[in-house]
Amino acid sequence: MAHLLHIDSSVRGDQSVSRRLTARAAERWRATHPGGTVTYHDFAVDPIPHFDNATVTARMVQADQRTPAQHKSFARNVALVDEIKNADTVLLGLPLYNFGAPSTVKAWVDHIVAHGLSIDPETGAGLLGGTDFIILGSRGHGCGPGTPHEGWDNQTWLSHAVSPTGLQPRFITAELTLADIDPAMADLKPMAAESLARALATIDQLWTADQNAA
Amino acid sequence: MAHLLHIDSSVRGDQSVSRRLTARAAERWRATHPGGTVTYHDFAVDPIPHFDNATVTARMVQADQRTPAQHKSFARNVALVDEIKNADTVLLGLPLYNFGAPSTVKAWVDHIVAHGLSIDPETGAGLLGGTDFIILGSRGHGCGPGTPHEGWDNQTWLSHAVSPTGLQPRFITAELTLADIDPAMADLKPMAAESLARALATIDQLWTADQNAA
Repeated sequence: MAHLLHIDSSVRGDQSVSRRLTARAAERWRATHPGGTVTYHDFAVDPIPHFDNATVTARMVQADQRTPAQHKSFARNVALVDEIKNADTVLLGLPLYNFGAPSTVKAWVDHIVAHGLSIDPETGAGLLGGTDFIILGSRGHGCGPGTPHEGWDNQTWLSHAVSPTGLQPRFITAELTLADIDPAMADLKPMAAESLARALATIDQLWTADQNAA
Repeated sequence: MAHLLHIDSSVRGDQSVSRRLTARAAERWRATHPGGTVTYHDFAVDPIPHFDNATVTARMVQADQRTPAQHKSFARNVALVDEIKNADTVLLGLPLYNFGAPSTVKAWVDHIVAHGLSIDPETGAGLLGGTDFIILGSRGHGCGPGTPHEGWDNQTWLSHAVSPTGLQPRFITAELTLADIDPAMADLKPMAAESLARALATIDQLWTADQNAA
């Protein structure tokens, strides 16, 4: 039975572009995977706690040596990694705030990159390579060549961070989303609309019914 | 009266390299600023909550329209920004976990970059330019030319993120800190020791008694 893990992280509710993209992708996934099941997380409502000393220490000691706080933290690590292992596809909504991922997404990444859970402790091989990891990104500015924020694309951090686990993110991003809000960016509205349309069209091509029936 | 804001964020306690660097810098600052005062935060013990919908919304509505959650969040924003305005120098300990800043540091940045508080709402000018912002960084790997992680230096994100506030981070970083822990990196121990020694020497040159007496 196909399984999807769908995660949103934007704090902007109905105004969120990344939520619009993940919703479209989840809808498309359901349509092409009849009988498939979905796990949903909303980090804006139910955030992953910050990485802390208990989390780090719990990974380094034997199970019977762990404090209650370390047990609780380690159990969360295991559950978050298992969610990914159990999913054929992960959809992550990734807005950028101040040119970086939401702190909730960083906390999630710090929990899932773990020797012995998502990385083979003997060989160092990543254990999550069987899951397709699709990032539905949004950013207020453009980061392409010739733009004022060229190279400020800190989304690439995510590829670096999860690489030891075998996850290989595929990015679909709508950019210049601030053009609809910031009067100084009004000239960029057509480019923003084009970027959003391109992202939606890419999402619509992610899965076909034929491909999954085969 | 000179004032220092000293922030640690490592979750590794006594094992932390960034804490060793901030402690050395704070000690040096005290020695060269007799009578100076210090505010201290430990994000590993007392983390800044994740940026959330209340925080974002509170900035967009008039004070008398705010919900209790929005009031509380906005008051935190004001307090964190004022701490920086009131400091001549901010020392931030910045380890990298999974090639990114701790989620607690990201949450702090999301709270301090705020129109009307750290950015002039009329002119867009940054309001924190009067504070010297010194980052004491540590990272497990090297990111220099020719290393396996060349260009994975996600510290630069911080410069991008705070640029609208006028803060201009100065980085002092010890790298290859995993060489002392990871047997596979044992060959790099001399380079790691050299990097740490260089960072400590740079810290020792940050302030001189003469300069501050002038």
